[in-house]
Amino acid sequence: MKYRRSGRLIDMTEYLLRHPHQSVSLTFFSERYGAAKSSVSEDIGIIKEVFEQKGIGRLATSAGVTGGVLFVPTMTDEASEALVQDICRQLEEPSRVLPGGYLYMMDIIGDPERMQQLGRIFASYFHGSGADVVMTMATKGIPLAYAVASQLHLPVAIVRHEQRVTEGSLVSINYVSGSSRRIQTMSLSKRSLKEGSRVLIIDDFMKAGGTIRGMMDLTEEFQSSVVGAGVLMEAVHEHEKLVEDYVSLMQLSGVDARGRRIDVGPGSMFHHAAQYE
Amino acid sequence: MKYRRSGRLIDMTEYLLRHPHQSVSLTFFSERYGAAKSSVSEDIGIIKEVFEQKGIGRLATSAGVTGGVLFVPTMTDEASEALVQDICRQLEEPSRVLPGGYLYMMDIIGDPERMQQLGRIFASYFHGSGADVVMTMATKGIPLAYAVASQLHLPVAIVRHEQRVTEGSLVSINYVSGSSRRIQTMSLSKRSLKEGSRVLIIDDFMKAGGTIRGMMDLTEEFQSSVVGAGVLMEAVHEHEKLVEDYVSLMQLSGVDARGRRIDVGPGSMFHHAAQYE
Repeated sequence: MKYRRSGRLIDMTEYLLRHPHQSVSLTFFSERYGAAKSSVSEDIGIIKEVFEQKGIGRLATSAGVTGGVLFVPTMTDEASEALVQDICRQLEEPSRVLPGGYLYMMDIIGDPERMQQLGRIFASYFHGSGADVVMTMATKGIPLAYAVASQLHLPVAIVRHEQRVTEGSLVSINYVSGSSRRIQTMSLSKRSLKEGSRVLIIDDFMKAGGTIRGMMDLTEEFQSSVVGAGVLMEAVHEHEKLVEDYVSLMQLSGVDARGRRIDVGPGSMFHHAAQYE
Repeated sequence: MKYRRSGRLIDMTEYLLRHPHQSVSLTFFSERYGAAKSSVSEDIGIIKEVFEQKGIGRLATSAGVTGGVLFVPTMTDEASEALVQDICRQLEEPSRVLPGGYLYMMDIIGDPERMQQLGRIFASYFHGSGADVVMTMATKGIPLAYAVASQLHLPVAIVRHEQRVTEGSLVSINYVSGSSRRIQTMSLSKRSLKEGSRVLIIDDFMKAGGTIRGMMDLTEEFQSSVVGAGVLMEAVHEHEKLVEDYVSLMQLSGVDARGRRIDVGPGSMFHHAAQYE
């Protein structure tokens, strides 16, 4: 009996982690293990306690015939900020200054484990936003967007600059890049977004906010609405930003190409209390 | 005592799943739980049995003072083929035929859970390849590449068509797209790939193989070597392919735009025994 419980706990833990934000009925687990619902219910209680204690996430349980359990990945404010602070320190390494005053971040974005962790911060922050799709801009927003979407159990819609023909008809809009003032085009395949969608925008970098503004406008073209926006890094910008409702994980206040000095700190998420509690 | 073991099993399961292909010492777990190494060792034995029985993966254990455990995500041939067959059936839906004879796949690629599952097939297949980095081509190869890389605990290097200036100096090569015969350029940031890397190429679609061939040539420019290549879908192509050593998960043998008929079946991975056992 002791071993059977052990086996169930291990398998249920794996199953719940792999199915975030999906309601799993007690009946499912009870049949999977040939165990009484009361035993399964006890198992869930144990897992719930460990998940909460270790900061893995919450298990929302519902009672009754349709009773079930739903795993909500979370990250505490302390853990989130510690993780972000750690990345900020890495980003202040002088060798990251690139010609033109850019900051090399591709090693951070190219690290799937980091992206999963940062994605969990956003998944935790936006879990109550009611989003039913995550939208991002190719290329560098994609890894973070997938990390967020996988933990919220949502599909991803990828907006692109070029107009590829391999995805059927597109909706395209022109937008003004806020920092360079250039007119650019962004496109999204018509099939990628259903009318009436609730969109969570995730991107890697924001300066004046032109790209995010563009994605908001594009969302309207699909008779859909934006329920939140999160960026990995925002650059402090001299002029007014083109968007207001967004959160950033990090803030870049300056890259001094000559002195090779970079100032990065925690972003707006850590400046005020969580929005969607 | 019973509860303490339960708690350890749940937390260890979560920890191991989140750290695939990373050796974790018994000492680490023993200190994390304030438990004797012998107890931790017993816990690992229980988890190992469940992971194997449920097809979650293998736990490789090493004994001695430096003793530890390493989680290798795997998927059985049967489970892999069942998953792929299921996607093939979905892809044969006539409404997926696009003008020009293309096949709409963005909903599959836009589903993070699917990508994780397909990534696990490749992670299982290539786990002994000795790769130390996953390379892919923007845009649509990225989700699968990250899914593979996260389960092999490797970084991702993203090759791109455009020459963005925000990642420092680039290495660019011209290559001939095998199907359209057009000359194109692909670039990779110099910092994205260390000399002497062992590269696993992952991409979404292959027709004549020009893009994969290009990535192989680009890898050589970095004094690195390709240890494997995997594509989500290969199109059966009238001419000789430009690459030989690759595996595909699915094979597209025809899109009949007029009759709205699509023929998709399991790819070359399922035509012969696994290569890297």
